[in-house]
Amino acid sequence: MRLSSLAAEAGLPTATVKYYLRLGLLPAGTAINATESSYGDVHRERLRLIRALRDVVGLPLDRIARVLEAIDHPSPTLYETLGRAVGALDGHEAGPGDHPRARAALAHLGMPYEPGFPAVAQLDRALAAAESVGLPVDLERLERYAEHLRALAAFDLARMPIPDADEPPDTWPAAVRYAVLGTALHEPVLVALRRLTHQELAVGLTS
Amino acid sequence: MRLSSLAAEAGLPTATVKYYLRLGLLPAGTAINATESSYGDVHRERLRLIRALRDVVGLPLDRIARVLEAIDHPSPTLYETLGRAVGALDGHEAGPGDHPRARAALAHLGMPYEPGFPAVAQLDRALAAAESVGLPVDLERLERYAEHLRALAAFDLARMPIPDADEPPDTWPAAVRYAVLGTALHEPVLVALRRLTHQELAVGLTS
Repeated sequence: MRLSSLAAEAGLPTATVKYYLRLGLLPAGTAINATESSYGDVHRERLRLIRALRDVVGLPLDRIARVLEAIDHPSPTLYETLGRAVGALDGHEAGPGDHPRARAALAHLGMPYEPGFPAVAQLDRALAAAESVGLPVDLERLERYAEHLRALAAFDLARMPIPDADEPPDTWPAAVRYAVLGTALHEPVLVALRRLTHQELAVGLTS
Repeated sequence: MRLSSLAAEAGLPTATVKYYLRLGLLPAGTAINATESSYGDVHRERLRLIRALRDVVGLPLDRIARVLEAIDHPSPTLYETLGRAVGALDGHEAGPGDHPRARAALAHLGMPYEPGFPAVAQLDRALAAAESVGLPVDLERLERYAEHLRALAAFDLARMPIPDADEPPDTWPAAVRYAVLGTALHEPVLVALRRLTHQELAVGLTS
């Protein structure tokens, strides 16, 4: 299909699709003559993902580029690739520094401490913020959170399209897409539902 | 204490404290002569809460005002007061409209549907967003989320300073403060820890 059809189908202006091509967010099409190229399913899929990240998740283009970079140039293992892609959702760069609160929390929970993962820095900042207003997350709360989150994580992963260990990286994009969009879009559901369960229980106690 | 001392203790410029007084975020002090007033613990506490909401939670002043308004002019029940205060954390106004996805989800979970609560609209938006990218939250996922969130909510509420039902509204501010700051500051901990439990489980499956 021509660029104009690809753009029309994606509901985007042609200029936007050309811009994504120039930025490398979208791979080049197959040249059919000196001035035109042909585009196919790969491009259609990619535009769908870009639109979901841009319009639904609300991610700026530089972070969308980091997600796509993890798909197009995966790390040696799927695990690291997922970590990079999901890490792009967090606006903060993964600091190379130490994250003492997260380190202590993860050690207590028997979880690996990998300072290069953005979620570790994210946890450290969140723990520091809670501490700074006099509502520190103590060990008991951490344990309870982790217990229930592990159960939910097991549920999520059981539904993830995970390729077998011996499958090549070109089977990974579906897993990366699921992990990134699932993280970005299921977190707000979880947070809203959490507020509602608080309210549900509070009504019995406070009215 | 004088205004200048109050500001110095709070780590704020005097002009900022005067601004909060003009906006009504901070109650007036007790006049000690024609040009000066005296401030005490009430003001000190209030500034601490404003700073936590402004600097740690990152809430804009108009939403801080809505939290304080719920404290200063509580609704008839503590339950409604908490709902209003926590609702101020969400940037969206509570729509008076219908929220069909949230309604169906809450009905399925046997939870009350109160369209006036911001978290209901928040849940509806989150469900719509997930659906729009082809990752709808089905009933099984909803049930699992709710099951674990209820357990966590019970834990949180057991630690909340909830006054007895017959205690007057002037005992409510501590509960409101805990609910607002706990919601704002424990959610990011939960979200970060969720990403880490995903990674913890994923390493076994994908590396």
